[in-house]
Order: sequence, then structure tokens, then C-alpha cells
Amino acid sequence: MSLAVTAALADDIAHIRENPPSRSGLERAQAAFLDTIGVMIAGGSEPAVALLADTLMKLGENPHGQSAGLLLDATAAHVLDFDDVAFGGHVSAILVPSILRAATDRGVSGIDMLLAYAAGYEAWSEIASREKVMYHARGLHPTGLLGPIASAAACSVLFRLDTCQTSMALAIAASQGAGLTANFGTMTKPFHAGRAAQAGFLAACLAQNGFTAAPDGLESFLSSYSPGGDIDRERPLNRASGAWMLERIPPSVKQYPVCYAGHRAIDASIELAQVHPLSLADIVSIDVLISDRHSKTLRYSKPKTASEARFSLEFFVASALSHNWVGLSDVDDANLTDETLQQLMAKITRRISDDIDPVLDGFARYDQVAVCLSDGQRLISAPVSRALGHAERPLDLAHIRTKFEDCLAYAGRSSDAEALFSVVATLADSTEGTLLSAPWVTGRGL
Amino acid sequence: MSLAVTAALADDIAHIRENPPSRSGLERAQAAFLDTIGVMIAGGSEPAVALLADTLMKLGENPHGQSAGLLLDATAAHVLDFDDVAFGGHVSAILVPSILRAATDRGVSGIDMLLAYAAGYEAWSEIASREKVMYHARGLHPTGLLGPIASAAACSVLFRLDTCQTSMALAIAASQGAGLTANFGTMTKPFHAGRAAQAGFLAACLAQNGFTAAPDGLESFLSSYSPGGDIDRERPLNRASGAWMLERIPPSVKQYPVCYAGHRAIDASIELAQVHPLSLADIVSIDVLISDRHSKTLRYSKPKTASEARFSLEFFVASALSHNWVGLSDVDDANLTDETLQQLMAKITRRISDDIDPVLDGFARYDQVAVCLSDGQRLISAPVSRALGHAERPLDLAHIRTKFEDCLAYAGRSSDAEALFSVVATLADSTEGTLLSAPWVTGRGL
Repeated sequence: MSLAVTAALADDIAHIRENPPSRSGLERAQAAFLDTIGVMIAGGSEPAVALLADTLMKLGENPHGQSAGLLLDATAAHVLDFDDVAFGGHVSAILVPSILRAATDRGVSGIDMLLAYAAGYEAWSEIASREKVMYHARGLHPTGLLGPIASAAACSVLFRLDTCQTSMALAIAASQGAGLTANFGTMTKPFHAGRAAQAGFLAACLAQNGFTAAPDGLESFLSSYSPGGDIDRERPLNRASGAWMLERIPPSVKQYPVCYAGHRAIDASIELAQVHPLSLADIVSIDVLISDRHSKTLRYSKPKTASEARFSLEFFVASALSHNWVGLSDVDDANLTDETLQQLMAKITRRISDDIDPVLDGFARYDQVAVCLSDGQRLISAPVSRALGHAERPLDLAHIRTKFEDCLAYAGRSSDAEALFSVVATLADSTEGTLLSAPWVTGRGL
Repeated sequence: MSLAVTAALADDIAHIRENPPSRSGLERAQAAFLDTIGVMIAGGSEPAVALLADTLMKLGENPHGQSAGLLLDATAAHVLDFDDVAFGGHVSAILVPSILRAATDRGVSGIDMLLAYAAGYEAWSEIASREKVMYHARGLHPTGLLGPIASAAACSVLFRLDTCQTSMALAIAASQGAGLTANFGTMTKPFHAGRAAQAGFLAACLAQNGFTAAPDGLESFLSSYSPGGDIDRERPLNRASGAWMLERIPPSVKQYPVCYAGHRAIDASIELAQVHPLSLADIVSIDVLISDRHSKTLRYSKPKTASEARFSLEFFVASALSHNWVGLSDVDDANLTDETLQQLMAKITRRISDDIDPVLDGFARYDQVAVCLSDGQRLISAPVSRALGHAERPLDLAHIRTKFEDCLAYAGRSSDAEALFSVVATLADSTEGTLLSAPWVTGRGL
């Protein structure tokens, strides 16, 4: 590779304090903290997290310690599939827990936490944006694959590593990326996030302590994992344009706690049901237009568990048409056996779109839902090319706050919502040691 | 994939006690324990292990605990690159530490430890032997990539998991495989082994506790990581022939503590120097014939550290010609600056062989060393197609014992050698809880 990605990126990250993101970039990071902390708290007691915690305790590990605590936190942040999305993966579910654990007891300011987020986001997007085809195409889960690199970049900022140490941290992390899409719909999917966050944090700690790795870690990573070998090798770093990626292409926030591949179909279903109030009994058939990649990702047409339901297009669309929403309490083992829902799911046919989005790899140009009624009417939703909450259709602070409160209520922690929201919503103004520690946030370790 | 590899392999492993390897297979496993325990003890204080231990302690982790202890043990087993090799990777550096830690305090018999080894070996070879091209070709380190699967298989036997749980353990492990060959010659290479062993052990613990994963974990792994997409999908399991792979193609034991890609050239150099006693001053030039893949793996022609020297063909050949051996004390930062050695290294030219071994991917048909002397003589070694210690040229027990004693002496633990050797050399006769616990072996946690 003619361009030394590792060296250039490490140097940029090590000097982030001299050349920080704009105020609006820092506020984007702050919004990601709000969103991720909410979903992480909501996910904190899910079965996958509880089983992982129990296993760690049986092994004599301290679930309140930094390393095991981070493994649990990042698993919790991703377990509901309600966390934000960027560059094909779940960037904030990696970064926010990593930063919270790495900052705890180190007297880190709010701004430093946001700078760390920007660095991690930049590292992730630098790798992902050099690939022409998403890692999913090869059966690899970008969250687990790129997560260690992003976490290592963020922790390198918190630990104030120099360029050489940051480069080592990135290369140690690059050697730990892992995760198969085959495990989507199982407890192992959120575990990818937990393991990746923990790996990146450990990489930065090792680099700080003098552990060695190769200077070409990221170049090698790109070559080894490229789905089609089509890597953009020659262009300069994204950062050469001046702006941080966080400012140019911020993360997309989720409205529904299910796989992002289904969000446009849910939007389309809700819009259709709102424009044409439906009697479910009158529905004869439902067609959902979606890309082949997304159809394959949503691998469960007849989900048997809530985990599988998060990857079931049929479940999402039927739920959205039934309730005009897909919320936290809808994705539940018990709801899956509801007869009305089951009947509606059986009426759904997937239609594969060959009209592919020119920008978003793996997406159709738009998703769309059509319903045939018993009187012969055919109702068609508007085409949805970007889900509400996408970076191009951002949610306002009121929406973010409502989601945050819903998440805390789901976890039975409504009483903490206001105080926690206030602290997180002012990180960009916190230039001294912040009160935001991981144990306070997650309730784990108090 | 028409054949369900995960399901079939899991079922076979879960029933290993009903259909165990032969006595000679168990003795092969026992020999692997002897070899690996020796090199693990020798590696226990190397800088990479010491820095890793220090980092873990700073994070509040217990380096004597099962999980962190295993991370350290497996890193130590691979740090000198003196551990055995099979199917392109370092199988025993993963399996032996995993089994020792998983068996400690569980009252496991020696035979059960050997059965666990056979299961892990089988799992590794089942995946590796379905690939036409080694993972190295893609920049991936098989030890880190396949290690979790092998460790999970071994621990599943120790924990007596049923077929379904074993299948889950394999799939959780398959989602944790990682490691870049770019990090060869750095501390991150042995860390791959540590991390992989820990991952597989955790996978088995999670599966035992009810954690879920996909039923097609290994099939997905094969598809996602295949270097050239050339996977043998249709054939039955290796085990369908009746014999365990451990009996058919046992691991190759190393005589020299350096990357296996250089062992044949070392054998050739020693043979040449023994047949033609040389005055080093008379040597004008040295040609080493080797495959392109191995030449690239041995990436340091001018090593600056002992870690890099383990991946330097020039260093190996010069050392072997100088001392008729490459031993533990030869691979040392200080020796690298020796002027005679440096002069000899500068006389070496790599010649790339296009004559490729029909069986061993990445190997030339043979490696060979030729020396030109100042009087015009040209001396040529015998061609070496299998290094001494290779499965086809096995070492006898006396050699194994000498290596074991050398390793314990290197670690300053000669006084433990006899007692430890006796216990390990009788594992195949131990049908009740054995005394062999990881803390006793490694000295870590005592």
C-alpha cells in the first residue's frame, strides 16, 4: 500500500487535541453518548448479558472490574440491536462503553471523552470507507471486526499515547478483530461487541505498557479481510480534507430495537398504516421490497425467540402494521406466539429489488411495502430510501430524550433518567474531570 | 455446504469417551504435553509475557485466575516459537494450556486431558484440512484463527458438554478467531495464541451455561476466511475413516526455537557443516533455497531484536553454520550484534524455489543450502524435505527429554524437571484425578 494508513492515522489521533473536531462534531459525539447510554442501560439485564455475567463470576472474574465490566457493558449496548449504526456497523456500542470504562477513575473531562469518541469514529470510518463492499458480504460482522481498532483509537486518546504507541495500539487491535454474521440472531452477536470493545481497550493498555506490534497493522488488516480485494489504497486519509468523519457522516440513530436492515420497511409500513387506516382482517397479502443482502441478513422468517425476531423482516412488518410502531416491549418471546401477528406474518412475501443504492452498499435504492385487501384494493407505501434517524434525516433532541426515557423505564431506572441525561447532555461543556463514570451509568459495580 | 461440519464434529467430540483414540494416539497427545509444557515454562519470563502480566495486574485482573492465567500460559507457550506445529499452526500451544487451566481444580484424569487434546486436534485439523491454501496466504495467522475452535473443542470434552452444547461452543469460538501474520516478529504473535486459548475456553464455559450461537458456525467460518474460496465442502469428516487425526498426522516437534518456515534450512546448514567442517572466514557466499511463501514469512533479513530474529532466515542459517545448532540461548538480543555472525548474515542470498511440495502448501519440495568458499569450492547440503522432528521423522523420547530439561534449565527450574516429567509422561495411565494442575506446571499462581 503506497499510503501508510497506520502511521498517518496514528499521528492524526495522537495530535487530536491540537486539531480537534468542531463544536458541532463534539455535539454529535455527545448525542451518540446519550443514545448509547440509554440502550446500554435498557440492555443491561437481557438474558445474554445475565448469562455472560454469571459465566464470568463462575470463572472468578470481577464483573465490576474494568475488563470484565467493559465486556458486559458493550454486550449490553448491542444486545437489543437498538444502538446506532455507521459505516456498516455499530460504532457507538463499541466506543461509548470503552470510553466510559477507560475514563472511570482517571479524572477525564467530558471534552476528552468526546475527543476519544471522534478518534474512534475516525479510525473505524477510515478502514470501512476504503472497502468497496461491506464485510457482511463475506460473512464477517463489522462490529466485531473493526470494533477493536476503534476502541483502541479512542482509548489511545484517553491515555494520551504518542504516535508510535497509538500505532502499536491500532496494530495489536487489528489482530483481534472477529465475528461471523452467521451468529446474528443469537447471543453471540452482541458478545462480538463486548469482546471487540474489551480487545481494543486491552490493546491500548498494552501499547501504553510497551508491548510491540507491526507498523503496518491497518494495511495488513485491509488486505486480509477485504471481501472482494477491492480496497481504495491510493487516496489520502479522510481527515486530509480537514473535517472529522463525525462531522461529515455522523451515525444513524435507530428508532426501533431491531436489525437496521429492516428499518426502512418498518418506516414504510407505519407510513402506509397511518395514511390508510387498516383493518388487519381485510389484508390478503403483503409484499415487501428489499435488497437481497438485507433479505439474507434478516434470516428468520419464522422467529422462535426475541433474539431471532430482531432479525425477522416478517416480524417487523407485521408488528409495524399492527401497532404503528416497533418498540422495546414488542420484541418479546411472548408476543411471538400472538395469533393475529402470526397470521399477518404468514401473508408476507419478500420481493428482492435489483435497483441498488448508488451510495449505500447492500441497500436497495429504496424499500417499499404494498398491501392487498380483500376488496381488491392495493395500497402502496411511499418509497423509503433513508430511515428516519439516518444521518440525512436526523432526530431532534426531543426524540433523543424520549428514546432515552423509554430505555430507562424499560430497565426500571426511570428515577435516574433526568440526572443522567443532564450530565451526559453537557459533556461538551465539561473541561474538568466529569462525574460520568461507568459504574454510575450501568449500575454495575455500585 | 452439503455436509453439516459443525453438527457432525460436535456429535463426534461429545461422544469421544465411547470411541476414544488408540493407545498410541493418546501417547502422541502425551508427548505433545511434554513438549509444550517444557517450552511454556521456558517462555514464562520472556518480555512479552512479563509485559502482558504487568498490564493485566494494572487493570486489576488476577493473573493467577483461570482466564488471565490461561491468557498468560498460552502466550508463554508460543513466545519462543519453540512449540510444535500441525496443519499450519501451533496447535499444542493452544490446547495444552487450555486443558491445564480448564482441568485445574476439577479432578480431571490424565486420560481425560489426553482425550480433550485429541478432540481439539481433530477440530483444528477438520477445518484446516478442508482448505486448499493455508490461511497465511491471506495474511491470517492460523494459530489465532483456528485456536479458539480447537480450545473450545478440548474444553467441551473436559466439561462433558453434550452435542448441542459442543456445537454452540464451537460456534461461539468460531466468532472469535483472529490474528494477522503482519504481527509476526512482534510480541503480538504469541499474544494471538494467548487470546485464542482464552477465547475457546470462555466459549465452552458460555455454552455450558446456556449461551446461544448459530448451528452452522464452522461452515460459516470456512466460507468467510477461505484464502481462495477453494474449500473441500463435500467430503465426509476426517473421522469418518475411523482414526483420529492425531494418529494419522501427529504434530511436528521443533528442534530450534524459531519460526518453522526456517527449520529445513537450519537442518541443511547443520548437515553441511557437519559433513564439511568449515572455517567461517573462508566462506564467500551462501545460497539458501526456500519457497517464496516461507521467504516472505521470514520477513526480517536484518533483525534488530530476538523477536525479529525468530523470523530471520539469515540469522538462523548464520547461527547454524557457526555453532552447528540454534538453541534457546542463541536467540538473544545480545548475540545479534556479534560481528562474526553479522558478517556471515551479509553473505546470504535467498533463492526462491518454484518446485513446490505436492502435499505441504507453501513449502518448496525441499530446502537446501550451498556455500562458496574462497578456494572456489562449492559445498551443497542434502535437500531437506522434512525437518527432523516432523511427523514423518519423529524424535525419540530421549530427544524429548533433553529438550524438556533444556527448557526447564533456561527458566531456572531444573530442580522441578524430573518430578514434572514423570507426572506428564504417565498421563496416559492416569484414570483418576491427576496431580497435574496449571499453577504447579507454570509456577504462576503458587
